[in-house]
Amino acid sequence: MPNPTAAILVIGDEILSGRTREGNAHYLAGELTRTGIDLREIRVVPDDHEGIAAAVNALRAAHDHVFTSGGIGPTHDDITADAVAAAFGVPIGVRADAHALMAAHYEARGVEFNAARMRMARIPDGASLIENPVSIAPGFTLGNVHVMAGVPNVFQAMVASVLPTLTGGQPLLSQSLRLMRPEGAVAETLGALAAAHPGVSIGSYPFSQDGAYGTNLVVRGPVAAEVDAAMRALGAAFAGAPE
Amino acid sequence: MPNPTAAILVIGDEILSGRTREGNAHYLAGELTRTGIDLREIRVVPDDHEGIAAAVNALRAAHDHVFTSGGIGPTHDDITADAVAAAFGVPIGVRADAHALMAAHYEARGVEFNAARMRMARIPDGASLIENPVSIAPGFTLGNVHVMAGVPNVFQAMVASVLPTLTGGQPLLSQSLRLMRPEGAVAETLGALAAAHPGVSIGSYPFSQDGAYGTNLVVRGPVAAEVDAAMRALGAAFAGAPE
Repeated sequence: MPNPTAAILVIGDEILSGRTREGNAHYLAGELTRTGIDLREIRVVPDDHEGIAAAVNALRAAHDHVFTSGGIGPTHDDITADAVAAAFGVPIGVRADAHALMAAHYEARGVEFNAARMRMARIPDGASLIENPVSIAPGFTLGNVHVMAGVPNVFQAMVASVLPTLTGGQPLLSQSLRLMRPEGAVAETLGALAAAHPGVSIGSYPFSQDGAYGTNLVVRGPVAAEVDAAMRALGAAFAGAPE
Repeated sequence: MPNPTAAILVIGDEILSGRTREGNAHYLAGELTRTGIDLREIRVVPDDHEGIAAAVNALRAAHDHVFTSGGIGPTHDDITADAVAAAFGVPIGVRADAHALMAAHYEARGVEFNAARMRMARIPDGASLIENPVSIAPGFTLGNVHVMAGVPNVFQAMVASVLPTLTGGQPLLSQSLRLMRPEGAVAETLGALAAAHPGVSIGSYPFSQDGAYGTNLVVRGPVAAEVDAAMRALGAAFAGAPE
Protein backbone atom coordinates (compact mmCIF):
# COMPACT_ATOMS: atom_id res chain seq x y z
CA MET A 1 0.00 0.00 0.00
CA PRO A 2 1.50 3.34 -0.97
CA ASN A 3 2.23 5.93 1.70
CA PRO A 4 -0.27 8.74 2.30
CA THR A 5 0.64 11.94 0.47
CA ALA A 6 0.72 15.51 1.76
CA ALA A 7 1.16 19.13 0.77
CA ILE A 8 2.23 22.12 2.87
CA LEU A 9 0.57 25.49 2.28
CA VAL A 10 2.43 28.46 3.77
CA ILE A 11 0.52 31.73 4.00
CA GLY A 12 2.33 35.04 4.29
CA ASP A 13 3.27 38.20 2.40
CA GLU A 14 6.42 38.46 4.52
CA ILE A 15 7.87 35.33 2.89
CA LEU A 16 7.03 36.43 -0.67
CA SER A 17 8.59 39.86 -0.08
CA GLY A 18 11.84 38.23 1.05
CA ARG A 19 11.61 39.72 4.54
CA THR A 20 11.29 36.37 6.32
CA ARG A 21 13.05 33.13 5.47
CA GLU A 22 10.48 30.38 5.89
CA GLY A 23 11.50 27.46 8.09
CA ASN A 24 8.26 25.67 9.02
CA ALA A 25 8.00 23.77 5.74
CA HIS A 26 11.55 22.45 6.14
CA TYR A 27 10.80 21.36 9.73
CA LEU A 28 7.56 19.60 8.81
CA ALA A 29 9.17 17.97 5.74
CA GLY A 30 11.57 16.13 8.03
CA GLU A 31 8.80 15.09 10.45
CA LEU A 32 6.63 13.78 7.59
CA THR A 33 9.52 11.73 6.19
CA ARG A 34 9.98 10.09 9.61
CA THR A 35 6.23 9.42 9.82
CA GLY A 36 5.99 7.77 6.40
CA ILE A 37 3.85 10.49 4.83
CA ASP A 38 5.14 11.52 1.38
CA LEU A 39 5.37 15.29 0.98
CA ARG A 40 4.62 16.06 -2.67
CA GLU A 41 4.33 19.83 -2.75
CA ILE A 42 5.08 23.01 -0.83
CA ARG A 43 3.21 26.15 -1.85
CA VAL A 44 3.60 29.70 -0.51
CA VAL A 45 0.77 32.18 -1.18
CA PRO A 46 0.01 35.78 -0.06
CA ASP A 47 -2.42 36.98 2.65
CA ASP A 48 -5.32 36.96 0.18
CA HIS A 49 -8.71 35.39 0.95
CA GLU A 50 -9.55 34.02 -2.51
CA GLY A 51 -5.98 32.87 -3.15
CA ILE A 52 -5.80 30.94 0.12
CA ALA A 53 -9.20 29.31 -0.45
CA ALA A 54 -8.29 28.31 -4.02
CA ALA A 55 -4.98 26.79 -2.91
CA VAL A 56 -6.66 24.89 -0.05
CA ASN A 57 -9.18 23.41 -2.47
CA ALA A 58 -6.58 22.47 -5.10
CA LEU A 59 -4.28 20.83 -2.56
CA ARG A 60 -6.91 18.99 -0.49
CA ALA A 61 -8.29 17.41 -3.67
CA ALA A 62 -4.84 16.21 -4.76
CA HIS A 63 -3.37 14.94 -1.46
CA ASP A 64 -4.32 12.87 1.58
CA HIS A 65 -3.28 15.67 3.96
CA VAL A 66 -2.75 19.42 3.72
CA PHE A 67 -0.86 21.27 6.46
CA THR A 68 -1.10 25.05 6.58
CA SER A 69 1.22 27.48 8.36
CA GLY A 70 0.39 31.07 9.25
CA GLY A 71 -2.44 33.57 9.45
CA ILE A 72 -4.38 32.41 12.53
CA GLY A 73 -3.38 35.14 15.01
CA PRO A 74 -5.41 38.07 16.35
CA THR A 75 -4.63 40.79 13.79
CA HIS A 76 -6.39 42.08 10.67
CA ASP A 77 -3.98 40.21 8.38
CA ASP A 78 -4.85 36.83 9.97
CA ILE A 79 -7.41 35.50 7.52
CA THR A 80 -6.56 31.82 7.15
CA ALA A 81 -9.40 30.41 9.30
CA ASP A 82 -12.01 32.36 7.33
CA ALA A 83 -10.45 31.35 4.00
CA VAL A 84 -10.41 27.65 4.99
CA ALA A 85 -14.05 27.86 6.10
CA ALA A 86 -14.91 29.47 2.74
CA ALA A 87 -12.98 26.75 0.87
CA PHE A 88 -15.13 24.10 2.58
CA GLY A 89 -18.30 26.20 2.34
CA VAL A 90 -18.97 25.98 6.09
CA PRO A 91 -19.80 28.72 8.64
CA ILE A 92 -17.22 29.97 11.15
CA GLY A 93 -17.81 31.43 14.60
CA VAL A 94 -16.43 31.60 18.13
CA ARG A 95 -16.50 28.08 19.54
CA ALA A 96 -17.27 27.46 23.21
CA ASP A 97 -14.46 25.00 23.96
CA ALA A 98 -11.77 27.14 22.33
CA HIS A 99 -13.19 30.25 24.03
CA ALA A 100 -13.13 28.53 27.44
CA LEU A 101 -9.52 27.36 27.06
CA MET A 102 -8.37 30.84 26.13
CA ALA A 103 -10.46 32.66 28.78
CA ALA A 104 -8.92 30.52 31.53
CA HIS A 105 -5.41 31.04 30.13
CA TYR A 106 -5.68 34.84 29.96
CA GLU A 107 -7.46 35.13 33.31
CA ALA A 108 -4.68 33.18 35.05
CA ARG A 109 -2.16 35.67 33.62
CA GLY A 110 -4.16 38.84 34.25
CA VAL A 111 -4.32 39.54 30.49
CA GLU A 112 -7.41 41.08 28.93
CA PHE A 113 -9.38 38.62 26.73
CA ASN A 114 -10.32 41.31 24.21
CA ALA A 115 -12.15 41.15 20.89
CA ALA A 116 -8.91 40.71 18.91
CA ARG A 117 -7.82 37.72 21.00
CA MET A 118 -11.35 36.31 20.78
CA ARG A 119 -10.89 36.09 16.99
CA MET A 120 -8.50 33.22 17.69
CA ALA A 121 -11.43 31.21 19.13
CA ARG A 122 -13.23 31.39 15.77
CA ILE A 123 -13.23 27.84 14.34
CA PRO A 124 -15.03 26.56 11.22
CA ASP A 125 -18.04 24.33 11.88
CA GLY A 126 -17.16 20.64 11.98
CA ALA A 127 -13.45 21.11 12.78
CA SER A 128 -11.57 19.45 15.63
CA LEU A 129 -9.06 21.47 17.65
CA ILE A 130 -5.28 21.07 17.48
CA GLU A 131 -3.75 21.56 20.90
CA ASN A 132 -1.30 24.44 21.41
CA PRO A 133 0.61 24.00 24.68
CA VAL A 134 2.77 27.07 23.96
CA SER A 135 0.23 29.88 23.72
CA ILE A 136 -3.14 28.05 24.04
CA ALA A 137 -5.01 29.55 21.03
CA PRO A 138 -5.67 26.32 19.11
CA GLY A 139 -5.21 25.23 15.52
CA PHE A 140 -7.81 23.01 13.90
CA THR A 141 -8.33 20.09 11.55
CA LEU A 142 -11.19 20.35 9.05
CA GLY A 143 -11.52 17.34 6.76
CA ASN A 144 -7.97 16.56 5.62
CA VAL A 145 -6.68 20.11 6.24
CA HIS A 146 -4.62 20.83 9.35
CA VAL A 147 -4.45 24.55 10.13
CA MET A 148 -1.52 25.70 12.29
CA ALA A 149 0.16 28.90 13.45
CA GLY A 150 3.18 30.39 11.69
CA VAL A 151 5.24 31.29 14.78
CA PRO A 152 7.88 28.54 14.65
CA ASN A 153 7.69 27.27 18.25
CA VAL A 154 3.88 27.24 18.12
CA PHE A 155 3.91 25.55 14.71
CA GLN A 156 6.22 22.84 16.02
CA ALA A 157 4.05 22.28 19.10
CA MET A 158 0.97 21.92 16.89
CA VAL A 159 2.80 19.47 14.60
CA ALA A 160 3.61 17.42 17.71
CA SER A 161 -0.10 17.48 18.62
CA VAL A 162 -1.45 16.46 15.23
CA LEU A 163 1.08 14.03 13.72
CA PRO A 164 0.48 11.21 16.24
CA THR A 165 -3.22 11.27 15.26
CA LEU A 166 -2.43 10.47 11.60
CA THR A 167 -1.73 7.08 10.07
CA GLY A 168 1.68 7.03 8.43
CA GLY A 169 3.24 4.48 6.11
CA GLN A 170 6.74 3.25 5.52
CA PRO A 171 9.22 5.87 6.68
CA LEU A 172 11.48 6.86 3.79
CA LEU A 173 14.97 5.60 4.55
CA SER A 174 18.05 7.33 3.20
CA GLN A 175 21.79 6.85 3.11
CA SER A 176 24.36 9.10 1.53
CA LEU A 177 27.84 8.92 0.04
CA ARG A 178 30.09 11.95 -0.29
CA LEU A 179 32.48 12.02 -3.23
CA MET A 180 35.15 14.65 -3.87
CA ARG A 181 34.48 14.37 -7.62
CA PRO A 182 32.33 16.65 -9.79
CA GLU A 183 28.89 15.48 -10.91
CA GLY A 184 29.96 15.47 -14.53
CA ALA A 185 32.60 12.82 -13.78
CA VAL A 186 30.24 10.40 -12.02
CA ALA A 187 27.01 11.02 -13.94
CA GLU A 188 27.25 8.22 -16.51
CA THR A 189 28.07 5.44 -14.03
CA LEU A 190 25.46 6.84 -11.67
CA GLY A 191 22.74 6.81 -14.33
CA ALA A 192 23.40 3.13 -15.02
CA LEU A 193 23.29 2.29 -11.29
CA ALA A 194 20.04 4.23 -10.84
CA ALA A 195 18.47 2.28 -13.70
CA ALA A 196 19.65 -1.00 -12.12
CA HIS A 197 18.05 -0.17 -8.74
CA PRO A 198 14.46 0.84 -9.54
CA GLY A 199 13.26 0.25 -5.95
CA VAL A 200 15.15 3.33 -4.72
CA SER A 201 15.69 6.85 -5.94
CA ILE A 202 19.26 8.09 -6.18
CA GLY A 203 19.72 11.83 -5.91
CA SER A 204 22.88 13.65 -6.90
CA TYR A 205 23.73 16.97 -5.21
CA PRO A 206 26.80 18.92 -6.30
CA PHE A 207 28.73 21.11 -3.91
CA SER A 208 31.95 23.09 -3.99
CA GLN A 209 34.48 23.19 -1.21
CA ASP A 210 37.77 25.09 -1.20
CA GLY A 211 37.46 25.57 -4.94
CA ALA A 212 36.97 21.85 -5.70
CA TYR A 213 33.72 20.29 -6.84
CA GLY A 214 32.16 17.32 -5.06
CA THR A 215 28.94 15.36 -5.19
CA ASN A 216 26.68 14.02 -2.47
CA LEU A 217 24.79 10.91 -3.55
CA VAL A 218 21.62 10.15 -1.59
CA VAL A 219 19.80 6.82 -1.87
CA ARG A 220 16.16 6.92 -0.69
CA GLY A 221 13.57 4.19 -0.45
CA PRO A 222 11.10 2.48 1.89
CA VAL A 223 12.85 -0.95 1.93
CA ALA A 224 16.08 -1.16 3.94
CA ALA A 225 17.51 -4.09 1.94
CA GLU A 226 17.09 -2.20 -1.33
CA VAL A 227 18.68 0.96 0.06
CA ASP A 228 21.58 -1.14 1.39
CA ALA A 229 22.04 -2.92 -1.95
CA ALA A 230 22.12 0.36 -3.87
CA MET A 231 24.61 1.84 -1.41
CA ARG A 232 26.89 -1.20 -1.79
CA ALA A 233 26.75 -0.83 -5.55
CA LEU A 234 27.63 2.88 -5.33
CA GLY A 235 30.48 2.09 -2.94
CA ALA A 236 31.88 -0.55 -5.29
CA ALA A 237 31.55 1.67 -8.36
CA PHE A 238 33.27 4.68 -6.84
CA ALA A 239 35.63 3.02 -4.32
CA GLY A 240 38.68 3.07 -6.54
CA ALA A 241 37.87 6.43 -8.03
CA PRO A 242 40.32 9.27 -7.47
CA GLU A 243 38.94 11.52 -4.75
CA MET B 1 0.30 50.42 -14.20
CA PRO B 2 0.53 47.47 -11.84
CA ASN B 3 3.86 45.74 -11.31
CA PRO B 4 4.64 42.57 -13.25
CA THR B 5 3.93 39.38 -11.27
CA ALA B 6 6.08 36.31 -10.79
CA ALA B 7 6.19 32.80 -9.39
CA ILE B 8 9.16 30.70 -8.34
CA LEU B 9 9.15 26.96 -9.06
CA VAL B 10 11.70 24.95 -7.08
CA ILE B 11 12.38 21.40 -8.28
CA GLY B 12 13.88 18.81 -5.97
CA ASP B 13 13.10 15.69 -3.95
CA GLU B 14 15.80 16.70 -1.46
CA ILE B 15 13.76 19.68 -0.31
CA LEU B 16 10.50 17.73 0.05
CA SER B 17 12.28 15.01 2.07
CA GLY B 18 13.58 17.61 4.53
CA ARG B 19 17.22 16.86 3.69
CA THR B 20 17.96 20.31 2.25
CA ARG B 21 16.67 23.64 3.48
CA GLU B 22 15.83 25.65 0.39
CA GLY B 23 17.35 29.11 0.16
CA ASN B 24 17.12 30.16 -3.50
CA ALA B 25 13.46 31.22 -3.28
CA HIS B 26 14.22 33.46 -0.30
CA TYR B 27 17.18 35.02 -2.14
CA LEU B 28 15.20 35.66 -5.33
CA ALA B 29 12.20 36.99 -3.36
CA GLY B 30 14.37 39.82 -2.05
CA GLU B 31 15.83 40.57 -5.50
CA LEU B 32 12.36 40.67 -7.09
CA THR B 33 11.08 43.07 -4.42
CA ARG B 34 13.97 45.42 -5.18
CA THR B 35 13.25 45.14 -8.94
CA GLY B 36 9.54 45.94 -8.61
CA ILE B 37 8.32 42.49 -9.66
CA ASP B 38 5.59 41.15 -7.35
CA LEU B 39 6.24 37.57 -6.25
CA ARG B 40 2.84 35.90 -5.88
CA GLU B 41 3.68 32.25 -5.35
CA ILE B 42 6.49 29.85 -4.50
CA ARG B 43 5.95 26.19 -5.36
CA VAL B 44 8.22 23.21 -4.63
CA VAL B 45 7.66 19.99 -6.60
CA PRO B 46 9.49 16.63 -6.88
CA ASP B 47 11.86 15.42 -9.62
CA ASP B 48 8.94 14.19 -11.72
CA HIS B 49 8.58 14.93 -15.46
CA GLU B 50 4.80 15.30 -15.62
CA GLY B 51 4.62 17.19 -12.32
CA ILE B 52 7.23 19.74 -13.40
CA ALA B 53 5.59 20.27 -16.79
CA ALA B 54 2.14 20.72 -15.22
CA ALA B 55 3.46 23.23 -12.67
CA VAL B 56 5.31 25.18 -15.39
CA ASN B 57 2.14 25.43 -17.45
CA ALA B 58 -0.05 26.45 -14.51
CA LEU B 59 2.38 29.12 -13.32
CA ARG B 60 3.34 30.60 -16.70
CA ALA B 61 -0.36 31.08 -17.52
CA ALA B 62 -0.99 32.87 -14.21
CA HIS B 63 2.07 35.15 -13.94
CA ASP B 64 4.21 37.45 -16.05
CA HIS B 65 7.39 35.57 -15.12
CA VAL B 66 8.26 32.12 -13.80
CA PHE B 67 11.71 31.43 -12.34
CA THR B 68 12.76 27.81 -11.85
CA SER B 69 15.53 26.49 -9.60
CA GLY B 70 17.14 23.07 -9.90
CA GLY B 71 17.39 20.02 -12.10
CA ILE B 72 19.61 21.23 -14.96
CA GLY B 73 22.86 19.42 -14.11
CA PRO B 74 24.48 16.40 -15.80
CA THR B 75 22.94 13.51 -13.83
CA HIS B 76 19.96 11.19 -14.43
CA ASP B 77 17.80 13.13 -11.94
CA ASP B 78 18.26 16.42 -13.84
CA ILE B 79 15.07 16.50 -15.91
CA THR B 80 13.94 20.13 -15.75
CA ALA B 81 15.02 21.17 -19.28
CA ASP B 82 13.14 18.25 -20.84
CA ALA B 83 10.06 18.92 -18.71
CA VAL B 84 10.04 22.62 -19.67
CA ALA B 85 10.40 21.71 -23.37
CA ALA B 86 7.48 19.29 -22.97
CA ALA B 87 5.40 21.96 -21.22
CA PHE B 88 5.88 24.27 -24.22
CA GLY B 89 5.55 21.41 -26.73
CA VAL B 90 8.90 22.20 -28.40
CA PRO B 91 11.85 19.92 -29.28
CA ILE B 92 15.06 19.92 -27.25
CA GLY B 93 18.57 19.09 -28.38
CA VAL B 94 22.24 20.01 -27.98
CA ARG B 95 22.67 23.59 -29.11
CA ALA B 96 25.78 24.73 -30.94
CA ASP B 97 26.44 27.93 -28.97
CA ALA B 98 26.00 26.28 -25.57
CA HIS B 99 28.13 23.33 -26.71
CA ALA B 100 30.91 25.66 -27.91
CA LEU B 101 30.98 27.62 -24.62
CA MET B 102 31.24 24.43 -22.59
CA ALA B 103 33.77 22.72 -24.88
CA ALA B 104 36.12 25.70 -24.57
CA HIS B 105 35.65 25.82 -20.79
CA TYR B 106 36.43 22.15 -20.24
CA GLU B 107 39.31 22.10 -22.72
CA ALA B 108 41.00 25.01 -20.95
CA ARG B 109 40.80 23.02 -17.70
CA GLY B 110 41.82 19.63 -19.11
CA VAL B 111 38.43 18.18 -18.12
CA GLU B 112 36.71 15.60 -20.33
CA PHE B 113 33.61 16.96 -22.12
CA ASN B 114 31.77 13.66 -21.81
CA ALA B 115 28.19 12.67 -22.69
CA ALA B 116 26.86 13.53 -19.23
CA ARG B 117 28.29 17.06 -19.35
CA MET B 118 26.99 17.41 -22.91
CA ARG B 119 23.45 16.96 -21.54
CA MET B 120 23.85 20.45 -20.03
CA ALA B 121 24.11 21.88 -23.59
CA ARG B 122 20.62 20.55 -24.39
CA ILE B 123 18.35 23.62 -24.74
CA PRO B 124 14.70 23.74 -25.88
CA ASP B 125 14.13 25.20 -29.36
CA GLY B 126 13.44 28.92 -29.29
CA ALA B 127 15.07 29.61 -25.90
CA SER B 128 17.72 32.23 -25.21
CA LEU B 129 20.68 31.38 -22.95
CA ILE B 130 21.16 32.69 -19.40
CA GLU B 131 24.83 33.33 -18.75
CA ASN B 132 26.56 31.35 -15.99
CA PRO B 133 29.92 32.94 -15.13
CA VAL B 134 30.46 30.45 -12.28
CA SER B 135 30.44 27.07 -14.02
CA ILE B 136 29.62 28.00 -17.67
CA ALA B 137 26.77 25.51 -18.36
CA PRO B 138 23.98 27.98 -19.15
CA GLY B 139 20.40 28.39 -17.98
CA PHE B 140 17.77 29.48 -20.48
CA THR B 141 14.69 31.64 -20.94
CA LEU B 142 11.80 30.14 -22.94
CA GLY B 143 8.79 32.43 -23.29
CA ASN B 144 8.25 33.85 -19.80
CA VAL B 145 10.02 30.96 -18.01
CA HIS B 146 13.57 31.45 -16.74
CA VAL B 147 15.29 28.14 -16.01
CA MET B 148 18.22 28.26 -13.58
CA ALA B 149 20.50 25.91 -11.65
CA GLY B 150 19.83 24.92 -8.03
CA VAL B 151 23.39 25.23 -6.69
CA PRO B 152 23.11 28.50 -4.75
CA ASN B 153 26.13 30.38 -6.11
CA VAL B 154 25.24 29.40 -9.68
CA PHE B 155 21.58 30.31 -9.11
CA GLN B 156 22.58 33.73 -7.82
CA ALA B 157 24.91 34.32 -10.77
CA MET B 158 22.10 33.41 -13.19
CA VAL B 159 19.67 35.73 -11.37
CA ALA B 160 22.24 38.50 -11.81
CA SER B 161 22.37 37.69 -15.56
CA VAL B 162 18.63 37.59 -16.15
CA LEU B 163 17.09 40.24 -13.87
CA PRO B 164 18.61 43.26 -15.67
CA THR B 165 16.95 42.06 -18.90
CA LEU B 166 13.44 42.27 -17.36
CA THR B 167 11.25 45.34 -16.98
CA GLY B 168 10.39 45.94 -13.36
CA GLY B 169 7.84 48.25 -11.81
CA GLN B 170 7.66 50.22 -8.60
CA PRO B 171 9.95 48.63 -6.00
CA LEU B 172 7.93 47.68 -2.94
CA LEU B 173 9.04 49.94 -0.08
CA SER B 174 8.85 48.84 3.53
CA GLN B 175 9.40 50.26 6.98
CA SER B 176 9.01 48.48 10.28
CA LEU B 177 8.26 49.24 13.92
CA ARG B 178 9.21 46.89 16.74
CA LEU B 179 6.92 46.85 19.78
CA MET B 180 7.54 44.93 23.01
CA ARG B 181 3.80 44.25 23.30
CA PRO B 182 1.91 41.10 22.29
CA GLU B 183 -0.15 41.08 19.08
CA GLY B 184 -3.37 40.63 21.03
CA ALA B 185 -2.82 43.98 22.77
CA VAL B 186 -2.24 45.99 19.59
CA ALA B 187 -4.56 44.18 17.17
CA GLU B 188 -7.67 46.35 17.49
CA THR B 189 -5.87 49.69 17.06
CA LEU B 190 -3.81 48.18 14.27
CA GLY B 191 -6.87 46.96 12.38
CA ALA B 192 -8.36 50.45 12.44
CA LEU B 193 -5.08 51.99 11.20
CA ALA B 194 -4.81 49.41 8.41
CA ALA B 195 -8.33 50.26 7.27
CA ALA B 196 -7.47 53.99 7.33
CA HIS B 197 -4.39 53.48 5.10
CA PRO B 198 -5.61 51.43 2.13
CA GLY B 199 -2.63 52.41 -0.06
CA VAL B 200 -0.27 50.25 2.02
CA SER B 201 -0.39 46.81 3.56
CA ILE B 202 0.44 46.52 7.25
CA GLY B 203 1.75 43.16 8.38
CA SER B 204 1.95 42.06 12.00
CA TYR B 205 4.58 39.49 13.03
CA PRO B 206 4.67 38.24 16.61
CA PHE B 207 7.89 37.14 18.28
CA SER B 208 8.99 36.11 21.73
CA GLN B 209 12.15 37.24 23.42
CA ASP B 210 13.35 36.30 26.90
CA GLY B 211 9.87 35.00 27.69
CA ALA B 212 8.09 38.22 26.66
CA TYR B 213 5.93 38.62 23.57
CA GLY B 214 6.52 41.38 21.04
CA THR B 215 5.23 42.38 17.62
CA ASN B 216 6.98 43.61 14.51
CA LEU B 217 4.78 45.83 12.38
CA VAL B 218 5.79 46.13 8.72
CA VAL B 219 4.28 48.74 6.39
CA ARG B 220 4.67 47.95 2.67
CA GLY B 221 3.66 49.89 -0.40
CA PRO B 222 4.91 51.35 -3.68
CA VAL B 223 4.42 55.04 -2.73
CA ALA B 224 6.92 56.50 -0.26
CA ALA B 225 4.57 59.23 1.02
CA GLU B 226 1.88 56.67 1.87
CA VAL B 227 4.34 54.39 3.63
CA ASP B 228 5.64 57.38 5.61
CA ALA B 229 2.12 58.50 6.57
CA ALA B 230 1.17 55.05 7.80
CA MET B 231 4.40 54.79 9.81
CA ARG B 232 3.72 58.17 11.45
CA ALA B 233 0.22 57.01 12.36
CA LEU B 234 1.58 53.80 13.88
CA GLY B 235 4.19 55.74 15.81
CA ALA B 236 1.57 58.13 17.19
CA ALA B 237 -0.81 55.33 18.12
CA PHE B 238 1.75 53.23 19.96
CA ALA B 239 4.18 55.91 21.19
CA GLY B 240 2.71 56.22 24.68
CA ALA B 241 2.01 52.53 24.98
CA PRO B 242 3.76 50.60 27.73
CA GLU B 243 6.62 48.64 26.21
